[in-house]
Amino acid sequence: MSAHHQHPHPEEHLGSSALLQDIVIGLSDGLTVPFALAAGLSGAVQSSELVITAGLAEIVAGSIAMGLGGYLSGRTELDHYAAEQRREYREVDEVPEVERAEVRELLADMGLSAATQELAMRELTADRDQWVKFMMKYELGLEEPDPRRARHSALTIGLAYAAGGLIPLSAYFVTATPAEGLLWSAVITLLCLLVFGFFKSRLTGQPPVAGALKMAAIGALAAAAAFGVARLVGG
Amino acid sequence: MSAHHQHPHPEEHLGSSALLQDIVIGLSDGLTVPFALAAGLSGAVQSSELVITAGLAEIVAGSIAMGLGGYLSGRTELDHYAAEQRREYREVDEVPEVERAEVRELLADMGLSAATQELAMRELTADRDQWVKFMMKYELGLEEPDPRRARHSALTIGLAYAAGGLIPLSAYFVTATPAEGLLWSAVITLLCLLVFGFFKSRLTGQPPVAGALKMAAIGALAAAAAFGVARLVGG
Repeated sequence: MSAHHQHPHPEEHLGSSALLQDIVIGLSDGLTVPFALAAGLSGAVQSSELVITAGLAEIVAGSIAMGLGGYLSGRTELDHYAAEQRREYREVDEVPEVERAEVRELLADMGLSAATQELAMRELTADRDQWVKFMMKYELGLEEPDPRRARHSALTIGLAYAAGGLIPLSAYFVTATPAEGLLWSAVITLLCLLVFGFFKSRLTGQPPVAGALKMAAIGALAAAAAFGVARLVGG
Repeated sequence: MSAHHQHPHPEEHLGSSALLQDIVIGLSDGLTVPFALAAGLSGAVQSSELVITAGLAEIVAGSIAMGLGGYLSGRTELDHYAAEQRREYREVDEVPEVERAEVRELLADMGLSAATQELAMRELTADRDQWVKFMMKYELGLEEPDPRRARHSALTIGLAYAAGGLIPLSAYFVTATPAEGLLWSAVITLLCLLVFGFFKSRLTGQPPVAGALKMAAIGALAAAAAFGVARLVGG
């Protein structure tokens, strides 16, 4: 069994690491949205300070929303698993015949003959914990989530969003006008999106050059649209 | 088999609908981030027009980033499934003994005796397509994704984000000053977050009142933090 095969969930194929996955989630949005917002404002206001103020407010808002969102969805996953597990234990105790029929159905779906279904079903359901584990995994597709994951995930996503967002914004700190800031911000951010898209695609086993171009295209499109709208409304 | 049991993936338990799930993703961020950004700017600038300009730029940037992000991750899921399937077919053809050992290992993990593992393994691997289907689902935990899903998902998430974002921003259209706009924006948005959190939690089978309070707390916290940062930097 190769290293690749040890993780049953598609999400976990991503470099086999939940940490890396959270960094990717935070960075892709962090590089894109604050960049596009700052670009948009550059088309509508004359003060770099205003672009920076709005950019920082967005980074704070976005990293809290994404970080807490990540935390709560992790907690919900834990609660959900525990609730489904209680439910399966109850069903195994109260309607064992229904649950046995479900086991048989899953085994039939795998392509087993009626005789082997019967045999495998009897062995699977001999132990109550084993039986529930089988139902959780093969009927519901649920793996037991790591309880510490939720907190780590929140922190990682939030920090990655903030780190990503500070990159496009940094250009406005060192330039005199929003227009000049936008130029450098676009150069730096598009480069970062290309590099980030390249490695992200390599991690997920996708063609890396296409992935790099896609990431940069999203950023450019979002920035162009924000620029157009801001100029239309406030310029 | 209850309706609840027909969907093997945890994500799909959410009201059994991918559409609903996309709306929830778009709305939770759409209600939170533009609200917090506008709140932040209200503490730093004197012009409602500026808050609206920045808010609209953020909504455009965010809905494109989220919508396109949703589209590309849907496409990646399709590519990933196809690549893994090709790989499994190749492995079944080239190293059938390794793959048979993996099948036996999965069956052992289910709690089957050595004799039943052997029997079930022979039946499972008799048909090549059935064999690959088993490996895809039970070894890798991958279900065949719906090819139309990616496009629909992008559109839904993007529109839900925009719809969510226009709610907090609408207050600034009808009030004279940013401070007044912020007051009404907070009232409207926190109410929406309470209602949204309530129904979202009910859909996912979580305690709805706690869910409502959590959603509102995230929004309030993000807005307060953005307000503080913007006032510090630009006020």
